[in-house]
Amino acid sequence: MSNERNERYAAVLVAGSWGTALASVLADNGFTVRLWTRNRQQAEEINTRNENAKFLPEIRLNSAIVATPSMEEALAEADIALFVAPSSAMRDVARQAAPYMSESTLCVHATKGFETETLNRMTIVLSEELGRPAERIAVLSGPSHAEEVIRKQPTTVVVASSGLAVAEQAQDAFMNPYFRVYTNPDAIGVEVAGAIKNIIALGAGLSDGLGFGDNAKAALLTRGLAEIGRLGEAMGANPKTFAGLAGVGDLVVTCTSKHSRNWRAGFMLADGTPLDEVLSRMGMVVEGVRTTRAAYELAKRYNVEMPITAQLHQVLFEQLEPKTAVTRLMGRLRTHEIEPID
Amino acid sequence: MSNERNERYAAVLVAGSWGTALASVLADNGFTVRLWTRNRQQAEEINTRNENAKFLPEIRLNSAIVATPSMEEALAEADIALFVAPSSAMRDVARQAAPYMSESTLCVHATKGFETETLNRMTIVLSEELGRPAERIAVLSGPSHAEEVIRKQPTTVVVASSGLAVAEQAQDAFMNPYFRVYTNPDAIGVEVAGAIKNIIALGAGLSDGLGFGDNAKAALLTRGLAEIGRLGEAMGANPKTFAGLAGVGDLVVTCTSKHSRNWRAGFMLADGTPLDEVLSRMGMVVEGVRTTRAAYELAKRYNVEMPITAQLHQVLFEQLEPKTAVTRLMGRLRTHEIEPID
Repeated sequence: MSNERNERYAAVLVAGSWGTALASVLADNGFTVRLWTRNRQQAEEINTRNENAKFLPEIRLNSAIVATPSMEEALAEADIALFVAPSSAMRDVARQAAPYMSESTLCVHATKGFETETLNRMTIVLSEELGRPAERIAVLSGPSHAEEVIRKQPTTVVVASSGLAVAEQAQDAFMNPYFRVYTNPDAIGVEVAGAIKNIIALGAGLSDGLGFGDNAKAALLTRGLAEIGRLGEAMGANPKTFAGLAGVGDLVVTCTSKHSRNWRAGFMLADGTPLDEVLSRMGMVVEGVRTTRAAYELAKRYNVEMPITAQLHQVLFEQLEPKTAVTRLMGRLRTHEIEPID
Repeated sequence: MSNERNERYAAVLVAGSWGTALASVLADNGFTVRLWTRNRQQAEEINTRNENAKFLPEIRLNSAIVATPSMEEALAEADIALFVAPSSAMRDVARQAAPYMSESTLCVHATKGFETETLNRMTIVLSEELGRPAERIAVLSGPSHAEEVIRKQPTTVVVASSGLAVAEQAQDAFMNPYFRVYTNPDAIGVEVAGAIKNIIALGAGLSDGLGFGDNAKAALLTRGLAEIGRLGEAMGANPKTFAGLAGVGDLVVTCTSKHSRNWRAGFMLADGTPLDEVLSRMGMVVEGVRTTRAAYELAKRYNVEMPITAQLHQVLFEQLEPKTAVTRLMGRLRTHEIEPID
């Protein structure tokens, strides 16, 4: 960030709830923020009403946030480009952004999921489309509901990158008194944890929706953490990452909070509502659904046991009764089995 | 368990909510259960009404549970003796039980805390008073609210002992379709996790009571897990235990469930209610309070950093404002700090 002007610019792509909340953190930190959305009407609405009515209703946005449907305008002079597109749109958004990204623009993403077709992590998708190495990309993750961040409620996250300098630049950009940022060199672990926890949250929603109690949900969550760890380690992550904010922290908040949309989707599925109806009622992307597909394939590719993912896959895509799935998960136990923590 | 009679006997000491819930599991598994309480009136009430009105109101108990104020009667012919006294009473209860314990009686405890005076784990207290080695004692722990267990809601726990045979005998005694039991050889880890999570739950209750959100609580819980791990490892535990049911599983359920009395005590403390009033309003033992004292001393003895315990110690015993404590915990961050997962 070698420019000599005083003003600092951030581009945030796209204007969902998490993108808007992080835009708000950057605006509070003194950035002039261009919030990109391909939806011209949404851009106008944000600019005239200072509100993102669809995703964060009744919250007045910092006036330093300006929405724009022009990628060129969004990225002009940007010191930092934050990618928060749904995982299914990340490659397309990155491809549109690439021509306007300068070499010196810090690149951070905050998207939780894999690319379904390639099973790539988001860092890899960005790296390919932007033509920059993974160590020049950081991922931001952790227990952080958008609804609380935009209300400036204390929140703690990690930014992870194989490049320490990039992680520290991202830390400097986002850190403030209500938004605490740690660095972690393990981008793989942070990305795997962020993606898979949405599957466990779907399962937790199912369990709650079926009337199982807190004891059952805690057991599911514990198994879920082990499942995240197994896939993560097979993909090259540091197992310690899963004990941290992006691992257990994010898992807990996603499985137990009323704000979690993956939990809510699972809860609705429990009474037999078909998946497409659940998704249309939610009206927002439910990353856990696509991630279940991707993780199911990753489990095969890396030869890792992922029982929760496997059961959820059957519920979502093979018409398995939710009750059968959860009962199977609770019942997976042989006599004299030692607790399978690994 | 070499006797030739068909009937199996269990002694459960004492008749709190967790003791009564576990007595109910054993009764469902075919044991004739003697539930010991020093309170003669409570014993009579349980026997005449088939209900433990104080601790688990409106739940009809299995008729195979018989309460008795006589230790001799409770332990006569007992195949299994389950100790569930409050940590402060464990030594006294064990001392009373010792003369009536046969060599062949399986010894299990399910108490979460340390002995404040000696800082000993409960296994050690029992070992000393019963004159049997630690490998002939098992501890039962995990995410398991009594209120759900007694309603037969699916629950998963671990029994841990340095003696595998004892852990497996305990597993056989407790296991049934709604109560799933794993074994774990790491009794130290299971006992440390079970004790310290009550401190973190007090902190979580404080955080919720002060109006902090789910993001903040998840961060606190993540830090809490690290704090449990640091003390546990210093005391000789296997770090993997903390990723399991007795670690993260129990921590989550205690910090996020409406059933948790430690959480409730923290919630009440948040508005400035003095500790003695909170305790008298609760009317039950809040283990986290005594455990905070013990853990504060253990942190010094093992030279381990336990910031949540230290702040809670000040709130409980040194009149620190709850808000100051939580704010300090949220604010413990230097620039460019790497996430302290170890």
